[in-house]
Amino acid sequence: MTAKILVTNDDGYFSDGIAALAEMLETIGEVTVVAPSSEQSATAHSLTLARPLRVRKISERRYSVDGTPTDCVTLALTKILPERPDIVISGINHGANLGDDVTYSGTVAGALEASIFKLPGIAVSLTARDGDFRPAAEFAADLTLRVLREGLPEGTVLNVNIPVGPVLGVRFTHQGVKIARVSIVDGIDPRGKQYYWIGEQQVSWKQDPGSDYEAIAEGMVSITPLRTDMTDYRTLDDIRNRNGFSF
Amino acid sequence: MTAKILVTNDDGYFSDGIAALAEMLETIGEVTVVAPSSEQSATAHSLTLARPLRVRKISERRYSVDGTPTDCVTLALTKILPERPDIVISGINHGANLGDDVTYSGTVAGALEASIFKLPGIAVSLTARDGDFRPAAEFAADLTLRVLREGLPEGTVLNVNIPVGPVLGVRFTHQGVKIARVSIVDGIDPRGKQYYWIGEQQVSWKQDPGSDYEAIAEGMVSITPLRTDMTDYRTLDDIRNRNGFSF
Repeated sequence: MTAKILVTNDDGYFSDGIAALAEMLETIGEVTVVAPSSEQSATAHSLTLARPLRVRKISERRYSVDGTPTDCVTLALTKILPERPDIVISGINHGANLGDDVTYSGTVAGALEASIFKLPGIAVSLTARDGDFRPAAEFAADLTLRVLREGLPEGTVLNVNIPVGPVLGVRFTHQGVKIARVSIVDGIDPRGKQYYWIGEQQVSWKQDPGSDYEAIAEGMVSITPLRTDMTDYRTLDDIRNRNGFSF
Repeated sequence: MTAKILVTNDDGYFSDGIAALAEMLETIGEVTVVAPSSEQSATAHSLTLARPLRVRKISERRYSVDGTPTDCVTLALTKILPERPDIVISGINHGANLGDDVTYSGTVAGALEASIFKLPGIAVSLTARDGDFRPAAEFAADLTLRVLREGLPEGTVLNVNIPVGPVLGVRFTHQGVKIARVSIVDGIDPRGKQYYWIGEQQVSWKQDPGSDYEAIAEGMVSITPLRTDMTDYRTLDDIRNRNGFSF
């Protein structure tokens, strides 16, 4: 039986990463692409509620939506696809999604939204903004086959980051901690008004054995299992044990 | 020394919830409000990168920004506030932020963004869309004092949901699991084109002792400690132990 694969991303329908991914996944299953019509980087797990959404059919099993990756997955699963897919693959993102950046990422959110619908999901990122996406697409296709065969625990998605160049191996990791310095560009617009523009962040990361950052720094593919659960269980246990916050 | 408190939300600067919160917090510290100029519900942890942002000074220590709660906290901490605040409080949200909805919430994201800047953060929601926000604001002010005194672990924020009506107690909880049925309204626009509008979700939740949903259902205030870390540690340990995914 042919696997049914839903593909989305946050860089937009017309980006190179999703094209390479969809092409490679066609070799292992029936691919439907439902992706944002424009770039949706850093849209996180946001849903568009304040306005209606438009779906554009580009060709057979190829659609764009004027919304976020989460909108795309939601509409694909409720309105666009004739039947439930077996898996949702989001990417290939142009640039890494590591550490705290995972929580801003629209690409990761696309995979997380699959888990809300009780489907397995994989987010795939290349750690460079541009380059040859084919080796990463090949890795993604192999991993997709493996997940289709072996399954994932319900609610778990995989966040995969793939370095550019030769891959030295694969490591299962935890989400690291970013050390960020935000750069804000401020200036005066043509009408004389002040503006602020949030820029790229100069990033280093907390030295932290087993983290996603460390794996990438050492030339490995990083695979982090994620859930939508952000509970800080260590602190929750501490509070319960010491009854520290008593009301 | 007077505590310096930054306040934001996702319902927008002109909502009742943030007004009640800011007014109550003024009794315990110096409050600066930096909040979205329009409603930003379900914007999650999204950052506006594709366009510049505008800051409007409304009065002394009162600002609106044409962006998301995450944008507001970022600009407040880098450009607007003359010095670093002691804590960031986000809310009071009009409606609950429980279970998986936490990952869509702009209000929770405002508190999470504080943790990225190594500040304590609290997200506060009233479980009804409207009503009297003052009892919830009072609870938030008490909790803020407590956190200012006792601190929070670095990277931890508190997600507080407060039921309407008499509060029977306070419970520390984990983030529950939503059982959602998405309702999509579709129709034809005035120009004859199809649209889809993502609607409210009919929600129940997984029966799960100790969850945020359960606390609220039982008339308690729910406080969930959260982190930006979404790693599924149980699955990560399983994979490492059984070496299940071997490449």
